[in-house]
Amino acid sequence: MRRMQYAVRGKIVIRAGEIDDMLRKNPAAFPFSEVVYCNIGNPQRLGQKPLTFPSQVMSLMNCPALMKQPNLFPSDVVERSQALLAHMPGGLSAYTHSQGVHYIRESVARFIEARDGYPANPDHIFLTDGASPGVKTIISMLRQHAGDAILVPNPQYPLYSATLQSVNATGVPYTLREDKGWAIDFENLEHMLQEARGTGLIVKAMVVINPGNPTGQCLSVKEMQAIINFCVQAKLVLLADEVYQVNTYKPKKPFHSFKKVWKQMQEISGNNNAHLELFSFHSVSKGLHGECGRRGGYFEAVGIHSGVLQEIYKAVSVNLCPNTAGQIMVNLMVDPPTPGSPSFKLYRRETYSIFQSLKRRAKLLGELLNSLEGVTCNVPEGAMYAFPRITLSPRAVAAAGKVGQTPDAFYAFHILEETGVVVVPGSGFILADLTDAHDAFFFRTTFLPPEDKMQEVFIRFHAAHSHFMSKYRGTGI
Amino acid sequence: MRRMQYAVRGKIVIRAGEIDDMLRKNPAAFPFSEVVYCNIGNPQRLGQKPLTFPSQVMSLMNCPALMKQPNLFPSDVVERSQALLAHMPGGLSAYTHSQGVHYIRESVARFIEARDGYPANPDHIFLTDGASPGVKTIISMLRQHAGDAILVPNPQYPLYSATLQSVNATGVPYTLREDKGWAIDFENLEHMLQEARGTGLIVKAMVVINPGNPTGQCLSVKEMQAIINFCVQAKLVLLADEVYQVNTYKPKKPFHSFKKVWKQMQEISGNNNAHLELFSFHSVSKGLHGECGRRGGYFEAVGIHSGVLQEIYKAVSVNLCPNTAGQIMVNLMVDPPTPGSPSFKLYRRETYSIFQSLKRRAKLLGELLNSLEGVTCNVPEGAMYAFPRITLSPRAVAAAGKVGQTPDAFYAFHILEETGVVVVPGSGFILADLTDAHDAFFFRTTFLPPEDKMQEVFIRFHAAHSHFMSKYRGTGI
Repeated sequence: MRRMQYAVRGKIVIRAGEIDDMLRKNPAAFPFSEVVYCNIGNPQRLGQKPLTFPSQVMSLMNCPALMKQPNLFPSDVVERSQALLAHMPGGLSAYTHSQGVHYIRESVARFIEARDGYPANPDHIFLTDGASPGVKTIISMLRQHAGDAILVPNPQYPLYSATLQSVNATGVPYTLREDKGWAIDFENLEHMLQEARGTGLIVKAMVVINPGNPTGQCLSVKEMQAIINFCVQAKLVLLADEVYQVNTYKPKKPFHSFKKVWKQMQEISGNNNAHLELFSFHSVSKGLHGECGRRGGYFEAVGIHSGVLQEIYKAVSVNLCPNTAGQIMVNLMVDPPTPGSPSFKLYRRETYSIFQSLKRRAKLLGELLNSLEGVTCNVPEGAMYAFPRITLSPRAVAAAGKVGQTPDAFYAFHILEETGVVVVPGSGFILADLTDAHDAFFFRTTFLPPEDKMQEVFIRFHAAHSHFMSKYRGTGI
Repeated sequence: MRRMQYAVRGKIVIRAGEIDDMLRKNPAAFPFSEVVYCNIGNPQRLGQKPLTFPSQVMSLMNCPALMKQPNLFPSDVVERSQALLAHMPGGLSAYTHSQGVHYIRESVARFIEARDGYPANPDHIFLTDGASPGVKTIISMLRQHAGDAILVPNPQYPLYSATLQSVNATGVPYTLREDKGWAIDFENLEHMLQEARGTGLIVKAMVVINPGNPTGQCLSVKEMQAIINFCVQAKLVLLADEVYQVNTYKPKKPFHSFKKVWKQMQEISGNNNAHLELFSFHSVSKGLHGECGRRGGYFEAVGIHSGVLQEIYKAVSVNLCPNTAGQIMVNLMVDPPTPGSPSFKLYRRETYSIFQSLKRRAKLLGELLNSLEGVTCNVPEGAMYAFPRITLSPRAVAAAGKVGQTPDAFYAFHILEETGVVVVPGSGFILADLTDAHDAFFFRTTFLPPEDKMQEVFIRFHAAHSHFMSKYRGTGI
């Protein structure tokens, strides 16, 4: 537990909280007026407004007495609330089935079927308090013996490294190539598997994050097929982190679910002997809802033995049930207002506006970062993050060493203290060297500040960055 | 994981769900019209109405636009919503501090201080998704090496046994004496500790559930002092499950928190060398709120080293934050409407009515159970459960064995199939024999069905019980 690190909520975020407190007491305490949290994908914290339809349904379900008030809410808000309450005895206040309300799981199954063109079984869907607890449940269950290991992308979202450490399992990193737009290096993947198995590790699963976090790349169907073949041949459970499935900004790289690609492969090959075990994770925290605080999500188990599903049920039942607000938010995400319904137009306008803005911001952030001295960045194709590479001088590296920090953390703290912008040092995501260059470092930043603020925030960032680069130019100390 | 059992959501509950489904399709499928879930403390599922004040605040916070509607809600509902939203940037939709919103933790600290007369530190309070995840976090952190063990009451709430098994730690049972109103047998407690330590187990902590679950007893101050002295001398962390602190029905046995009793002991003795490490767990699921589905709760760490608190913070940060609705519900529980405020009278009437009804039902259930052939029951002093003892004939035991069930499960399934009432076999709570009698078994039942239904439910129960007892009377098969 001591060794475990969780960068996106680590030391820099604790320091940011202190600065936030100081600013509240004395607005002139720093050369900026507010802390801008780019450490984590938390859009509403940065001003994104909740969508109206889900807010209204949640409001009404919390106080069904409001149904007596005429015209308070559109009729489809009332109908949805009534339908959900009819299937949730005790409403938001009661424990539900440990796997989540069956009626809501049915709506998830219909959503998956509409998305993929292949049926889904509500009994193979588990509602969760966000994607993270789902991932933790599955990784905990995969870990049976010392020496059990899981392939994880490098760089990766630290949920995976932290969970593996907390259950005392090994993460085997496979490389995403920064110089190839964060594409998987399949040769390296095969090599890492063989090497790990050669040293006696029992490699049981492979984590894929698509769209990528922290890296923002989107997989092509061809890459996904290669991953699936690799997992089938190596008998690896595929853990597909697909929480950013709506956050794809490059028309040529639309989202495809691993389940769909796998089902298509089976259809085409007609080979029913090949077997894939797949868990796909989704969340209400990302997409265009950004309902992080609800802690709502689900996972679908595909090709998983019924005995294993029973064990998963038992494991999640110890927490009794996912929180009801998160469950309802899952329903509202997978079953939005449809054309013709009273809430449809507003819902479409709100989601369209958020999507277009995210798309613009992804491009803008990539451009801005690439304009910085010593920084190169793959423009994000999806998700909510950029993971730029920054070349730091030997002097900066030495100065970091003197205060006992890694160079990337030293840089991130400098940015925080001068601008109030919180970015996460890349070392929190990196499990093994990504490059041979000893002067190459990384950081992760979201592109979630509102557009009107982004330029202004970037001007501060640019100044602090230039200050840092000139302060530590050269090799002396 | 396979060995792990979680009785209150186990096989009998899965069967109850099937019966529920069948009844929905064919109301005449069973000799009863509905399933009555007495397996778990889930009051709203059985018709208890949510309190009005928290429902209104939750509703308004989900849709702050409603504040524009005049006179929709009482002014204190509006004020509370505004105050909470002012301290929750992004409202219900955003991730909060991983430990929970500081403003809400401050309200918890004030609640504890008012309850105990001793100050509490918001930084030592962790908001959680209900008490269960808090317990799991602490037990996971206590478990460092194989052989680590924790003293747990016998009988106990299976959260403890299940969590211990899932982290591969050992539960060392200490006896609650059924023949002494479920009082702790201190001689046995001392003996179990010494025996466990003698066999090389590293006993690190002691779990106490007060008021008791499944047993419904309340601890006296004297017993609590003895427990504290025991923990201090044996250097055990005390895990105090105090989620039923409002559910005490015997005027002579009011609730005292372990923190208060410990602080008083320190004050009286003036001995500042003695040190107690204590975690106290609380929840919005029980009490008079019964907001189980929210998954809200907290724990307070008392006498815990700051380095340990930092590690706990890191561990909980991997789940990002407790769900916001649960956090808000904690605030509404610990800071209810005060005299003179617009919502006060209704709030007092609602809580008083629930409390008085629970108190009557505790007594009634005890009496009804004691009237059954072969059943004896300590009348519950607190919590929401009775844990009656039932003497089963050799014939019943043999019949159970023939179908591969434990006798208590065999009995519980009989009751379920004949009445629709779901009770939990005692073996799910029992870690070691409670009695020398081989014909003594137990089950747990809540007393949560509404009063008007309780008599009717009991008539069915009585008939099914009598049927069982006469069917299996004697020793043959």
